[in-house]
Amino acid sequence: MKTQVAIIGAGPSGLLLGQLLHKAGIDNVIIERQSPDYVLGRIRAGVLEQGMVDLLREAGVGQRMDREGLVHDGFELAFDGRLERIDLRTLTGGKTVMVYGQTEVTRDLMEARAASGAPCFYEASEVELHELKGENPHVTFLHQGQRMRLDCQQIAGCDGFHGVSRKSIPAGVLSEFERVYPFGWLGVLADTPPVNDELIYANHERGFALCSMRSPTRTRYYVQVGAEEKVEDWSDERFWDELKRRLPEQTAAKLVTGPSIEKSIAPLRSFVVEPMQYGHLFLVGDAAHIVPPTGAKGLNLAASDVSTLYRILLKVHQEGRNDLLEKYSSICLRRIWKAERFSWWMTSMLHRFPDTDAFSQRMQQTELDYYVGSEAGRRTIAENYVGLPYEAVE
Amino acid sequence: MKTQVAIIGAGPSGLLLGQLLHKAGIDNVIIERQSPDYVLGRIRAGVLEQGMVDLLREAGVGQRMDREGLVHDGFELAFDGRLERIDLRTLTGGKTVMVYGQTEVTRDLMEARAASGAPCFYEASEVELHELKGENPHVTFLHQGQRMRLDCQQIAGCDGFHGVSRKSIPAGVLSEFERVYPFGWLGVLADTPPVNDELIYANHERGFALCSMRSPTRTRYYVQVGAEEKVEDWSDERFWDELKRRLPEQTAAKLVTGPSIEKSIAPLRSFVVEPMQYGHLFLVGDAAHIVPPTGAKGLNLAASDVSTLYRILLKVHQEGRNDLLEKYSSICLRRIWKAERFSWWMTSMLHRFPDTDAFSQRMQQTELDYYVGSEAGRRTIAENYVGLPYEAVE
Repeated sequence: MKTQVAIIGAGPSGLLLGQLLHKAGIDNVIIERQSPDYVLGRIRAGVLEQGMVDLLREAGVGQRMDREGLVHDGFELAFDGRLERIDLRTLTGGKTVMVYGQTEVTRDLMEARAASGAPCFYEASEVELHELKGENPHVTFLHQGQRMRLDCQQIAGCDGFHGVSRKSIPAGVLSEFERVYPFGWLGVLADTPPVNDELIYANHERGFALCSMRSPTRTRYYVQVGAEEKVEDWSDERFWDELKRRLPEQTAAKLVTGPSIEKSIAPLRSFVVEPMQYGHLFLVGDAAHIVPPTGAKGLNLAASDVSTLYRILLKVHQEGRNDLLEKYSSICLRRIWKAERFSWWMTSMLHRFPDTDAFSQRMQQTELDYYVGSEAGRRTIAENYVGLPYEAVE
Repeated sequence: MKTQVAIIGAGPSGLLLGQLLHKAGIDNVIIERQSPDYVLGRIRAGVLEQGMVDLLREAGVGQRMDREGLVHDGFELAFDGRLERIDLRTLTGGKTVMVYGQTEVTRDLMEARAASGAPCFYEASEVELHELKGENPHVTFLHQGQRMRLDCQQIAGCDGFHGVSRKSIPAGVLSEFERVYPFGWLGVLADTPPVNDELIYANHERGFALCSMRSPTRTRYYVQVGAEEKVEDWSDERFWDELKRRLPEQTAAKLVTGPSIEKSIAPLRSFVVEPMQYGHLFLVGDAAHIVPPTGAKGLNLAASDVSTLYRILLKVHQEGRNDLLEKYSSICLRRIWKAERFSWWMTSMLHRFPDTDAFSQRMQQTELDYYVGSEAGRRTIAENYVGLPYEAVE
């Protein structure tokens, strides 16, 4: 089997890249280790930057998002009994974010893929990448008992942090940058009306809390928990009680609770590898970098990698601009490091750290007080939250 | 002896407060442990915020400063081989800073004090504060062999971090917030022309460096050194060599070196006590808080405390508004914490820390890259550097 671009992973990055390439007439094949239902079952991000929204529209998969997604003009920061709004639209000259769950994005992309007829191999096992620096790059895998070989010109590694792509790069090639945070997020999905029209990020002495949503009838709430906590120890009742204690009184009083549909604990980590490419392999999204979820940058960063790789591949396959391939990593990393910084800063500013001394605590409170009290400060938060501009490919 | 306000310490804070009160017809006496020459010999800050410049003018001591001081419209941040200007005037809507040494400010204030005829007791020993919460607050001290007693209504503690004022407050009353940084600044004063018209703050892998000045013919340069370094180990030659290595090439090439007039190592510390008052005693400047020198906030914060205390005392002694006295600490602390934050942030962003891992180092580089690359980011730096507005007294 032969294609132009082999895509490893059918999460939102792989599917979006595949759809963009397909629309541009560039042949591609997706190989995914899991089943479609498993991929759809992963509850993840829900806030899309303007750049990702535009990219989904460009890929032709924006119709349902534009119909059902919720445009948010701002969000709230809660601290010290205060509730302070960051007015994204005003502070950024008109930019906003779109609340639309990763699950829905993935579903829309899956349907588009199926409609396009372009191949996507689910439940592929023993996926291996070959000749990454050789003449004949190819991927081998086992599918429905059959051993397959896919020859290609480029391989896009869209298979996440634990995927095979990054691991296929020889030891010693990549530099790793990592920070593991000493806490996790306990998240609950529930069919309840959101406590607030916009997201609320809360700094509280008992720990961080976040009120988010997926739709006008489905909420996603989080509380910071210790790194060693077990989800079994958190009944719905305990979760709702803890969440209420961390919200401003007037917000807690409005909170509508209900049975959880999903409940899980996620660790928080910052991670980047440099470079994001090796020979014919190009790492995209979580395969190359992780952000803590504070600031909602994970999926959006994957989208900007997709945009960069797509625009490079377009010029490579349509104009023969092979020289651009070697620029992929450095173009992506400029924006990635800034999003890593914002996610690290939001995490640092909003969470309780086990080793925080009295001075650090005051720095955290003052940081919030200064940034929300200064127009320039609010603008730095807003311009990062809606997403810094995509880097040009040239 | 009797006065309205006893002022402990004849550094710039005590002298400035004394001058302002004297001009307003409020009787005051200054008591200082050292000699005038000793006080003038301390080499300290050299960058005055607009607010302090205005306050010095209001006190009637701005003539020489306005003649000899250097108005700076901006400063430079050097990192990663780049030299990026923060244009203070443009970014803040017209605000600037004044380069005029603390020594000169003190000299001007001393002359004004002498001319006013208001008493200032130098070389006073065994200074003790009494009845801070009683009916008859007073200060006792030994002066030229004579035991003195000064009765007063308020005591202003302007005697610095090591002074007697803060130590006179009973144990358990004050909350302390402290951060000691694991490095110091080696500073050299020299009669050489400045390498640049404006200050240069440099982040370098060998450590922080600062190119500052006192006048068009006198420079003040610093390099970050280990906490345990001794000034004896730093010959002038070694200092100049190290400084050059930390500056961008084109700057280092222009550096004019010369014999040092003064050379010393200062530790870096953040420190705040709350509250800044106890009964009839009001702590001012370094007696209540210390900032690391990155950002040039120490003297300026003392000036904003002086301004607040002066405006309160004016209303107390002229309008009987005794209710304002209890607000002194909370009014001051709002601005102080923000200046502490900025100084901590500038220090964190520009220095090499012994325990910095690869991820932290990237965060530091990205912080610089993001802030200088974003107009909102540059504005946050500029508005803090020129000084946030003084808090109103009401």
